[in-house]
Amino acid sequence: MTTRASTALLTDRYELTMIEAALADGTADRPCVFEVFARRLPDGRRYGVVAGTGRLLEAIADFRFGREELDWLRENGIVGEQTLAYLEDYRFRGSITGYAEGELYFPGSPLLVVEASFADGVILETLALSILNYDSAVAAAASRMTAAAGDRPCLEMGSRRAQEHAAVAAARATAVAGFSGTSNLEAGRRYGLRTIGTAAHAFTLLHDDERSAFVSQVASAGAGTTLLVDTYDVEQGVITAVDAAGTALGAVRLDSGDLTTVAREVREQLDDLGATGTRIVVSSDLDEYAIAALAVAPVDSYGVGTSVVTGSGAPTCGMVYKLVLREGSDGEMHAVAKASAGGKSSVGGRKVAGRRIENGLATEEVVLLSPDADLPALDQVAEVAELRPLHVPLVVDGVVDERFVGPEGVRRATERHAASIRELPRAALRLSAGEPAIPTEVVAV
Amino acid sequence: MTTRASTALLTDRYELTMIEAALADGTADRPCVFEVFARRLPDGRRYGVVAGTGRLLEAIADFRFGREELDWLRENGIVGEQTLAYLEDYRFRGSITGYAEGELYFPGSPLLVVEASFADGVILETLALSILNYDSAVAAAASRMTAAAGDRPCLEMGSRRAQEHAAVAAARATAVAGFSGTSNLEAGRRYGLRTIGTAAHAFTLLHDDERSAFVSQVASAGAGTTLLVDTYDVEQGVITAVDAAGTALGAVRLDSGDLTTVAREVREQLDDLGATGTRIVVSSDLDEYAIAALAVAPVDSYGVGTSVVTGSGAPTCGMVYKLVLREGSDGEMHAVAKASAGGKSSVGGRKVAGRRIENGLATEEVVLLSPDADLPALDQVAEVAELRPLHVPLVVDGVVDERFVGPEGVRRATERHAASIRELPRAALRLSAGEPAIPTEVVAV
Repeated sequence: MTTRASTALLTDRYELTMIEAALADGTADRPCVFEVFARRLPDGRRYGVVAGTGRLLEAIADFRFGREELDWLRENGIVGEQTLAYLEDYRFRGSITGYAEGELYFPGSPLLVVEASFADGVILETLALSILNYDSAVAAAASRMTAAAGDRPCLEMGSRRAQEHAAVAAARATAVAGFSGTSNLEAGRRYGLRTIGTAAHAFTLLHDDERSAFVSQVASAGAGTTLLVDTYDVEQGVITAVDAAGTALGAVRLDSGDLTTVAREVREQLDDLGATGTRIVVSSDLDEYAIAALAVAPVDSYGVGTSVVTGSGAPTCGMVYKLVLREGSDGEMHAVAKASAGGKSSVGGRKVAGRRIENGLATEEVVLLSPDADLPALDQVAEVAELRPLHVPLVVDGVVDERFVGPEGVRRATERHAASIRELPRAALRLSAGEPAIPTEVVAV
Repeated sequence: MTTRASTALLTDRYELTMIEAALADGTADRPCVFEVFARRLPDGRRYGVVAGTGRLLEAIADFRFGREELDWLRENGIVGEQTLAYLEDYRFRGSITGYAEGELYFPGSPLLVVEASFADGVILETLALSILNYDSAVAAAASRMTAAAGDRPCLEMGSRRAQEHAAVAAARATAVAGFSGTSNLEAGRRYGLRTIGTAAHAFTLLHDDERSAFVSQVASAGAGTTLLVDTYDVEQGVITAVDAAGTALGAVRLDSGDLTTVAREVREQLDDLGATGTRIVVSSDLDEYAIAALAVAPVDSYGVGTSVVTGSGAPTCGMVYKLVLREGSDGEMHAVAKASAGGKSSVGGRKVAGRRIENGLATEEVVLLSPDADLPALDQVAEVAELRPLHVPLVVDGVVDERFVGPEGVRRATERHAASIRELPRAALRLSAGEPAIPTEVVAV
């Protein structure tokens, strides 16, 4: 029931029609370098967060054209036999370096560098961007929320406000940015995340009265559970909750009303009832601003839904996948780029990036650019330019580095995110609109 | 490779913990009615579009807990053996009526009415909302775009700006709202949609010069293809395109710059070159406002990406799934609802809806409400209240109506959307911010 399905048709038709023409004219095999980058951050954002890298590596491993996919392409005349034969044998044989998942990024950061033949590389464009654009949008929003929440845990509860598979990716991306739990079971299973959640209003409404519901929940889940106390009257709900669970009650959840005021009242009430260890979880339309505003309220954790899974105003990133270097008919490598028009310019040539760190704080994103393929090796960036290297090898000659996928990939990404956030100047964590926290400088070498 | 995977864990943990407690206390079997509705439309929107219904019906059919899912739940202590046994046998045995896919909706429209035992019904909450909230958000945006485009076709090209599986759902939702093609191959395969797309800038950049690229593309795809003419200089690109393909060139695509101005210049140039039948496709960051602004430009079709797959400012709908009626310990059915706080109220009781149509135009959304289960049958709504009935049976005693799934479901939904749009007063199609096009009246019967 849970075979990983082929990801090969999660692709725009034009990738295949380009390959069709390139196979026919002999350019499909030209060595190429493609680059993923974002021209800008969403309005007012001070940094971006790379997320989805591990999912992309998993998807590349599953990127094979099976019999069903090939038959459909043939029957619908999408491509001809030469291309079908190419697709039948397809597996990614190139190499990919890029920013480690969880790393921060800025406008122009070369997030992924894909080295492959034209056909092998271009076919991944749609899939790579779908994954990185969505996951990074969620992670960027989540990162602002964990920054606003400080030491209080953020919990992801937004599955219902995202497409059902996007919800799994969203839960994973929030974990990368420091969320400590998710309501989504599939995300728990697939990525080893902690899952959370006890009851909705429906559970209380199902019962003849609130007391029966609370007694039942405590009998089933123990006194350490979280009781949702705002179905009818919050004050009465709290009394009933402590009565049903005792003062060992784990937590109460508030999902409506003016949370700052209600949280204060409920804290006082719990303390008066002797439930001094009972925590307060809030979960009503929270975003990073609401979380920041609740800093003064006696709240123990934040359940976040809609705003995080929709990127809190920026539901996608503007990352693009561009050809930047390719072999010509002269056998030489040439930097290539679309001419500038309407801000859609890009910078041709191979790039490698590092972050300048001074006194423990990031001061500059440095992109070393070569018009051809002649660049310092990844591990020499530190020596050559005194930078923290940002590029790591993700796929080498078609072999995915398994440390970056699955649950281990998420754990590493979470660590990377936390470490990179610690390097940022504190002003970069302000929620107000601002410029990118550090400038990006492109240096020709 | 393409086995439909289980959808059962695309679920919030609390659905299962509620079932666990309800199985233990004997309420899991209580007959219940759940309702999906939206309290409001996104700010300024005049109508919503129901989409995803067919996908939901497919997902319900696949909603089974297999060995892997059960093992994971057991090993992680999510639920105990009684619940695992229930889940192992789970298949949806209830009935669902609801708005036909493609139908318009307004605040309070009872979009889906799920009749089942508590456990059988509550477990579908997350999955139902994930699908309907995302697909309907995309369809609503797409509907505004097809309205703005008039007779000119809209083409969906946004896969790269949505999570990779959300992209497939988005393509489908745009088709429901009248888009006439999509770049997404999997959407084409799964739902029988027309797929489109020829080449990206990378294809031109791959070649030594623009001419080689165009000659290759025409040799591969024929003169009827669409050539992307803005990689370098548009004016020269058009000359080269007509030179390579002849005056039978199908179309040119413009993906950057001031599209109104450039389209005029290119139209004149094409006509001067004798390519009077060559069409112009534009595709640079279009939304419904840009499409409306291009009405005066000689453009033949619109390629839409980011804005449609992200709901053009409203990336999710606020649809909720609420228990509205349930049997009590007295054996009677009782209307239930959360107490109002912070706008999160709902109306208990069973509902059936119709639209009042006068002189061919919609004037009112009428929701017939019964405090218990006593309501007119669906097919009697027209007679009883002189309304166009909005509820259709989607699942009867666990059996999905196959006419609403797969490619046939999308075709029916597209027709339904077009017919319902024709019933709207013209003012409802304005893009400016406004109130819901018609009021929703709840009538107790």
